[in-house]
Amino acid sequence: MIYQNDLLLRAARGEEVERAPVWVMRQAGRVLPEYRAVRKEAGSFKGLLMNPELAAEVTIQPVNLLGVDAAILFSDILVIPEALGLEYHMDEGKGPWFPRTISAMDDLTLLNAKDVVSNLEYVRKTIKRIISDLDGRIPLIGFAGAPWTILCYMIEGRGSKTFSKTRSVCYSNPELAHALLAMITEATIAYLKMQIAEGCAIVQIFDSWAGILNKEIYDEFGLKYISKICDQVQEVPVTVFSKGAFFALEDLGRVSCRTVGLDWHIDPSKAREVVGPLKTLQGNLDPAVLYGDFDQIKKKTAAMLDAFGRQRYIVNLGHGVYPDIRADHLKCFIDYTKEHQYKS
Amino acid sequence: MIYQNDLLLRAARGEEVERAPVWVMRQAGRVLPEYRAVRKEAGSFKGLLMNPELAAEVTIQPVNLLGVDAAILFSDILVIPEALGLEYHMDEGKGPWFPRTISAMDDLTLLNAKDVVSNLEYVRKTIKRIISDLDGRIPLIGFAGAPWTILCYMIEGRGSKTFSKTRSVCYSNPELAHALLAMITEATIAYLKMQIAEGCAIVQIFDSWAGILNKEIYDEFGLKYISKICDQVQEVPVTVFSKGAFFALEDLGRVSCRTVGLDWHIDPSKAREVVGPLKTLQGNLDPAVLYGDFDQIKKKTAAMLDAFGRQRYIVNLGHGVYPDIRADHLKCFIDYTKEHQYKS
Repeated sequence: MIYQNDLLLRAARGEEVERAPVWVMRQAGRVLPEYRAVRKEAGSFKGLLMNPELAAEVTIQPVNLLGVDAAILFSDILVIPEALGLEYHMDEGKGPWFPRTISAMDDLTLLNAKDVVSNLEYVRKTIKRIISDLDGRIPLIGFAGAPWTILCYMIEGRGSKTFSKTRSVCYSNPELAHALLAMITEATIAYLKMQIAEGCAIVQIFDSWAGILNKEIYDEFGLKYISKICDQVQEVPVTVFSKGAFFALEDLGRVSCRTVGLDWHIDPSKAREVVGPLKTLQGNLDPAVLYGDFDQIKKKTAAMLDAFGRQRYIVNLGHGVYPDIRADHLKCFIDYTKEHQYKS
Repeated sequence: MIYQNDLLLRAARGEEVERAPVWVMRQAGRVLPEYRAVRKEAGSFKGLLMNPELAAEVTIQPVNLLGVDAAILFSDILVIPEALGLEYHMDEGKGPWFPRTISAMDDLTLLNAKDVVSNLEYVRKTIKRIISDLDGRIPLIGFAGAPWTILCYMIEGRGSKTFSKTRSVCYSNPELAHALLAMITEATIAYLKMQIAEGCAIVQIFDSWAGILNKEIYDEFGLKYISKICDQVQEVPVTVFSKGAFFALEDLGRVSCRTVGLDWHIDPSKAREVVGPLKTLQGNLDPAVLYGDFDQIKKKTAAMLDAFGRQRYIVNLGHGVYPDIRADHLKCFIDYTKEHQYKS
């Protein structure tokens, strides 16, 4: 596939670029009034993501409205536990929750890893539609949740401040955790391969709850499975974003992914030092900077761009854009990254 | 004041000890059935902490039941915003919330830093009672929230996953943030000095929400005010616990506190390397380890003790003990730290 703009792919592969590509986590989302209109039309969040036509529409909105260098599939990391057999609900303002959860080996009979891809036929249709609508302008990013984060939801049934139930299982019933993680990993590999077969040119693994652990436990219950996914998904560049896991950055430098995503807690030059010279880095502006005025946004973005440097770097925020950020502030950030004059 | 057991004070001052002292964050709390009985008798959480007799009773419970080397005042960091003029409510299972919050300079007229200590007369009475009941057995730890964390509550009105409202103020209205932080800092210094005058032999500053920031913003809105408190409170050793702020550890090594508290995300030897040799370190067992069996608790605790070493070290968890941990598991942790044979 030849793209009119392939900056993202070249940056991910470590090839030379004339400027660092930019996209934004949650760029297809509530920050855009146009998204909110489609979301209203769909009636519910799940109604939107299961509707290929509307999901494709909101995926493409930021491409046209914000001028990003990549589209990212509009979907949710929780489609995997649902496709495995645990249905989830998404209540307005309350976040996702699962009526049934996993707490013992016997509960694994509720799950079936074999039908995951066929259960996600609506995602396949969405990707087909996006690829057709994008018409080779820019690459489409696919994604999945990391096994550890999916495990958290399948055991807790909802978000948590401490995820102490899941962490309890790691210490008191590690066999259960590993059996479930293996199943999630298998499903995730099949799901990502389907996304790639349909045209996703790069895929990202989101480990939203990595930061609740320490190095020892993350090695055993987190990185091990991410590593397996990266080893098996070699068709396109893979990005790993282990949010909050500053303690795992050195190890991430050794995982067979091309790009390491960074949250805003870590300093760019420190990250480069710890991860090493070979990976592309992605991130990591504090999303709260976009609450500031245009001058402040440009100043903080300039400092970040100079710190990362132009090569082996993909511009992004350090987390998803907050829904109450003004769209023109987000646009200011994106525009500025394209006109920045690097110091070196 | 001479204590029968002054291990904690000697460790905090960097003096030689025969074994590292141990206490546990939230040791006076729901982990003990005896606490839950008193809490029930008090009717509510605030009813308990505002009742000097009952608050003293639950402060002393873990001393007798668990054999810790220090008592910690039973109270809450939110007494400071309340004493400043913002009343808070504590709803069962929902966490604390404030009916009125601060969003503009004009709102500062709601607050009064002058009456803070007299508004906290019930804390003074509680400390008097604890000191009398302890009768010189072990030291009493006083505490307060760090200005940044208190600011978060005063602006958001409740806990939050992102504290984006407060972080927005840092970027869009820094003058308001600094005015409020200065007021909280003044109140906190007066409050800690009262605690010390009544007999607290060491005080801890809890910065629960430090980890939501990065180094740059934490320097300006967090550490600056913690540093001011440490400079002004020199009567007793001060511990600073900036939870999640791995990026601030190097700077904490330069703050005029004696002890740096560590969460479980940071590796002990890494922490020592970054903080430097002069501070006492406190922490940092993953609280979830206590879900494991006795063998596992002892094994993980042994590894931690060997990693920190016996000197300039105070044993603790890396966060408050989770309320659903079994009391005998917590006791196993505490007992083990006293009998451990150090490798070196």
